[in-house]
Order: sequence, then C-alpha cells, then structure tokens
Amino acid sequence: MQDKVNIEEKFRLVDVYWTPKILGQVNESHVKIFKAKGEFVWHSHEEEEEFFLVIKGQLTIKMPDREVVIHPGEFFIVPKGVEHLPYAKEEAHILLFEPKNVINTGNVTSKETVSDPDWI
Amino acid sequence: MQDKVNIEEKFRLVDVYWTPKILGQVNESHVKIFKAKGEFVWHSHEEEEEFFLVIKGQLTIKMPDREVVIHPGEFFIVPKGVEHLPYAKEEAHILLFEPKNVINTGNVTSKETVSDPDWI
Repeated sequence: MQDKVNIEEKFRLVDVYWTPKILGQVNESHVKIFKAKGEFVWHSHEEEEEFFLVIKGQLTIKMPDREVVIHPGEFFIVPKGVEHLPYAKEEAHILLFEPKNVINTGNVTSKETVSDPDWI
Repeated sequence: MQDKVNIEEKFRLVDVYWTPKILGQVNESHVKIFKAKGEFVWHSHEEEEEFFLVIKGQLTIKMPDREVVIHPGEFFIVPKGVEHLPYAKEEAHILLFEPKNVINTGNVTSKETVSDPDWI
C-alpha cells in the first residue's frame, strides 16, 4: 500500500519543465505532476480526456477557438480530440489525472515527448 | 466542452456531509467532492481504488491495520478490497477521483449510500 503523498514535497524533486512524473495509480489512471514554464507543443489526445488541476501559478490552455486560464484551486478537463497548447508565462505547478497510456505530446512527437514517465 | 471549475466555489453549494457531488468526468472516472464531518461507515470497494485529496481540514482513513491522517495538499489512495472508515473530527473538504460506477459505501448499504450522485 502506497503511503499518503504530499504534493508540494514531490514538486521540490522536479527540476525540469513539462516532464510528467507519476505520483500514484488509481485503477487505469495515473496521478502525475509537472512544472510548466513557457509554451509546450500543440497536440491532442484522440481517445483520452486530460484533467489539469493548478496547484501553484497560472496555466493557460490555448485551443483553436478559445483559451482557458486556470488558477490554483481550479481544474479544466481537455476533451478528447481537442487540439491544445499549454502555456505558462511564469513557472506553474500542475497535477494531472489521465489514463496510464497517455503520452504527454499526444498525436505529435517532439523533444518534449515522454512515453514512459518515471515515478517520483 | 465543460468550463473550468473552481473547487472552492463548488464546495459552497454543498450543504450535506458525506454525499458526493460530481464535478467532472475524465474518461471512465468522475471527479467528485464531498464534505466530511464525523464518522462515515466501514466499507470496501472490491474492484476500485479511491483517490482522496484533502482541500481543507483533515481527513483520517482508518483501516484494520493502520490509519492515515491526510492534510490539505496531500492525497491517499485506498487500494481495492481494503476496508476503510473515513473520519473527520471537524468539517473537512475532500476531492475524490474514482471510476464512474463506484458507490460511496462500497460493499455495504447504509443511510449514507448514494448510488447515483448529482452533478453540481
């Protein structure tokens, strides 16, 4: 049985941007965190929804027709198949909830692609 | 597409304890919240893990062999099949992540059982 997890303590161990780290498994999904700064890459996930909860800072999700600015204590779920570009002007800390098999850059491959995230 | 969700605003709409309300759907899982105060009921979920993130206050998860005290910014995942009793001395606010079909009292039926939670 995994012990309880302090999210802030885990963020202190992360020293890269946009690289998801796994904190826990809930059935077929992973709880992950990542630090955001600057622009990620435009991508979509054809079969999966992605849950973004902002822990610290501010994350903008740009989509073709709108953008959503997420603050601490707020979450946004990106529907499957919707192109999106995560963006953070200043460093932001994000908790993710998504199926285990999701690749962070979805339908595109870039230098940011992480297909098998580490546990932290 | 659902808009972003402010978790604290949603808690202001909840006026009962131990009754989960749905805030969002991520693939086959629901994001839910509930307010805790006092003791819930001993139960287990044979097939599902449950993710408890404390937003406010303090939640204790009693299990046969141990107990875990969860504070704001911490989460705990109850493994499938493990008997547990959630308990909060003072009012606590909890975010849950679990499969859509989970019933809050798992393998037991009590006056607290909610088999088809409302969206809020």
